[in-house]
Amino acid sequence: MINFTVGPVMSSDAVRAIGAEQVPYFRTAEFSAVMIENEKYLLEYAKAPRGSRAVFMTCSSTGSMEAVVMNCFSREDKVLVINGGSFGHRFVELCDIHEIPCVVIELEHGKKLTKEKLYEYDNKAFTGLLVNVDETSTAVLYDTMMLGEFCKKNNMFYVCDCVSSFLADPYNMAACGADVMITGSQKVLACPPGISIIVLAPKALERVQNSKIRTMYFDLNNALKNQERGQTPFTPAVGILLQINERLKEIEHNGGADAEVARVAAQAADFREKISGLPFEFVSESPANGVTAVHPTTANAYDIFLTLKDEYGIWICPNGGDMKDTIFRVGHMGALTHEDNTTLINALKDMQKRGLL
Amino acid sequence: MINFTVGPVMSSDAVRAIGAEQVPYFRTAEFSAVMIENEKYLLEYAKAPRGSRAVFMTCSSTGSMEAVVMNCFSREDKVLVINGGSFGHRFVELCDIHEIPCVVIELEHGKKLTKEKLYEYDNKAFTGLLVNVDETSTAVLYDTMMLGEFCKKNNMFYVCDCVSSFLADPYNMAACGADVMITGSQKVLACPPGISIIVLAPKALERVQNSKIRTMYFDLNNALKNQERGQTPFTPAVGILLQINERLKEIEHNGGADAEVARVAAQAADFREKISGLPFEFVSESPANGVTAVHPTTANAYDIFLTLKDEYGIWICPNGGDMKDTIFRVGHMGALTHEDNTTLINALKDMQKRGLL
Repeated sequence: MINFTVGPVMSSDAVRAIGAEQVPYFRTAEFSAVMIENEKYLLEYAKAPRGSRAVFMTCSSTGSMEAVVMNCFSREDKVLVINGGSFGHRFVELCDIHEIPCVVIELEHGKKLTKEKLYEYDNKAFTGLLVNVDETSTAVLYDTMMLGEFCKKNNMFYVCDCVSSFLADPYNMAACGADVMITGSQKVLACPPGISIIVLAPKALERVQNSKIRTMYFDLNNALKNQERGQTPFTPAVGILLQINERLKEIEHNGGADAEVARVAAQAADFREKISGLPFEFVSESPANGVTAVHPTTANAYDIFLTLKDEYGIWICPNGGDMKDTIFRVGHMGALTHEDNTTLINALKDMQKRGLL
Repeated sequence: MINFTVGPVMSSDAVRAIGAEQVPYFRTAEFSAVMIENEKYLLEYAKAPRGSRAVFMTCSSTGSMEAVVMNCFSREDKVLVINGGSFGHRFVELCDIHEIPCVVIELEHGKKLTKEKLYEYDNKAFTGLLVNVDETSTAVLYDTMMLGEFCKKNNMFYVCDCVSSFLADPYNMAACGADVMITGSQKVLACPPGISIIVLAPKALERVQNSKIRTMYFDLNNALKNQERGQTPFTPAVGILLQINERLKEIEHNGGADAEVARVAAQAADFREKISGLPFEFVSESPANGVTAVHPTTANAYDIFLTLKDEYGIWICPNGGDMKDTIFRVGHMGALTHEDNTTLINALKDMQKRGLL
């Protein structure tokens, strides 16, 4: 199977080779060294400001989204949430669950957030902003620099969920002034799912330190304290953390974070060029590099997903909920090549020939 | 390295081969079928009563302990916690964090819980019991049948953390009347860490359904609802779930749950026989099969761990906290053989010859 979904994505041979090894015992100096190195790479690739820290959580990225909402906000906050799809909606739900007062900027699926729209919320006493930088359900990329400027002006705590955008789209945590960045193991890091990562800038570390939360597993103070010595409070997904280490070095070897962003961008551009001529429309006004959201004009999106899976050995990524029948997605993250794009396009053209598109 | 720790443990070749494969996309009928099968095996091996369910959580077993405390108890409860070591202490902390009223039976490290001691708490209006069936820090096994009888008599909700005892020690969830059983991927299931599993008997399902909790990631109702169709609310550790499937079939092929318990018991008995003559004392009055806790009488426990790691290519399991210098542990779970025991014993004898023991 060729995997064009948005996670898990295809892993490199070196990452998969580690998956075949015995998982080592981890309360050792050897594993601590790996974790310290992982943190160093993460801070470098995120372009995090001096004094930032990173922790590695054994959970899906939703777990880390929840940990951040719990550790960084309280009932005294007034948070602005950008909701342009499933993941924006998830942040809204998290605020509701944890009783964080929030106001939601609702955007139609695929629409970008304009500066004009954003500044309707200027000078309204907001204390924080939550955004999914790549709203993965519709492949809309929000402008992190514009949002950062707005947060700075309004003195807002700025949380970037970069789950699908980290190392896919240009991002500079220090330059945009983000206080938190979240990502996951199964996106551009191209490892199996099971680990998510939270990068905390100094202001976030301060918020975490002063938080009074009722959680053991999502207690970021405890995670930070353990990570000082390259450890975790509880048994982590050790194997995946070793694979992440391999992958972080692989990215360095290939030229670093910017080179990886360029690689993903080229993979996306190649696909978008090749797909023209087929009966599809692009969904996103502001396309992210990691994924293309496609609206088929002549066929059901979910049927296309099923046919490609069952008859062509190809996974594209279906959408859920009210987008299930109208949108599918094609990912550009992980060990995919331009030749893989051609294979997918040829399959779609064959479906067209068969009258399925 | 030969790995005698209590997790991660050694995996079979078949399980490791899956670790080398690309992780598949998971919102498919194919993956759902695997998850439904995983649930079926878990209920069978736990000997869960009719109407039970199992959910697979992407987190460490501490995450599942917390999820159970949150979903199954409230401030109206009065819970009895058996605390004979690090993991019992963790349950106490979880009750404190979530404001569940609790009373703690404190046991000295290594001591078993006698019926006499337990019945001091009879007729005291307790509503629940939390126990780590194998208190992994000291290798003490508690009597699940005795505890179950006590819970039944006192109409108490009965939670068995079987993280290290599942498939290592005889256990019959239906017979002992447990309402919840917890285990993890990296113990006898001998897969990489990253997944923990919660089995819920009908009374637990009812408690979960009626709970009013403030959590998204640990919302067991949501997990149960998704598992009905073989799915999870959030991206799970897909690769590990596939490895668990392989391992569950492997156990069936080798004769089922009872045969695996017998295999682990034999591995433990072989080690305990071979170690006699060395300057060690057993710590546990009521030894569990999965692990042996050892007190070296002539050397520092942590130094032995370091020497075996650095000079013999063997991991035993160090203890933490106030047990660090006095206790180490040797695990009997996973793909270990009697020959591996001999290798470890020979290394210890060599250390003795060198004057290190």
